[in-house]
Amino acid sequence: MISEQKMKQGMQAYIDAFNRNDPEGIAALYADDATVEDPVGSPLKNGKAAIAAFYKMAVATGAKLSLAAPIRGSHSNSAAMAFDVNLNMPQGRAVIRVIDVMTFNDEGQFTSMRAFWAPGDMEMLPAK
Amino acid sequence: MISEQKMKQGMQAYIDAFNRNDPEGIAALYADDATVEDPVGSPLKNGKAAIAAFYKMAVATGAKLSLAAPIRGSHSNSAAMAFDVNLNMPQGRAVIRVIDVMTFNDEGQFTSMRAFWAPGDMEMLPAK
Repeated sequence: MISEQKMKQGMQAYIDAFNRNDPEGIAALYADDATVEDPVGSPLKNGKAAIAAFYKMAVATGAKLSLAAPIRGSHSNSAAMAFDVNLNMPQGRAVIRVIDVMTFNDEGQFTSMRAFWAPGDMEMLPAK
Repeated sequence: MISEQKMKQGMQAYIDAFNRNDPEGIAALYADDATVEDPVGSPLKNGKAAIAAFYKMAVATGAKLSLAAPIRGSHSNSAAMAFDVNLNMPQGRAVIRVIDVMTFNDEGQFTSMRAFWAPGDMEMLPAK
């Protein structure tokens, strides 16, 4: 089974790829048949092509991710992290507070991602 | 469906009941047929009696919980929170860094809890 260290490295690589505007790098972290549910309760994105398209759009917003607390592992093949999505918009800055849960295959690729956030987890902040 | 506000109130009530040493109060937040997987990857605790016994033991450690970031909702019947378990032990202070994911029924009770933490998420801290 995958180690907690490898899972946490994979989660950190996700944050880093997002923040260097590298949607292909994010998609490469996923298994070919992976699923993304973002937010939890929305239709699944199925497979690498759909996932790559999703991240191309997400990265194009200019959003930057910052961990809100250290990444957590588990005693199984899954890990979780709390982070903030920081956005600059014409109306000002915004933050979306998210927790992602990933599952992994033995090669260390994500087999699923579920993003917990609700409308109330979005907040407009005063412009800097 | 349950609102994100109700789910977040339920998660906060869990933290508060734990911190006032009220295992019965915690168990009362769960549905009768709920399951607890703590840590993720360990055998499920099934049903209110097993869950009450688990929290009686957990609260008896004297642990106190503190949120590491605001509680996250979802667009479905689940919510997630990152928190620290703070322990005073003969050897000094310890922290366990956890993310809990709960699912809810329409009455606002937890139908499942999954706690993400690994051995590497436990840390000994210098005594105060």
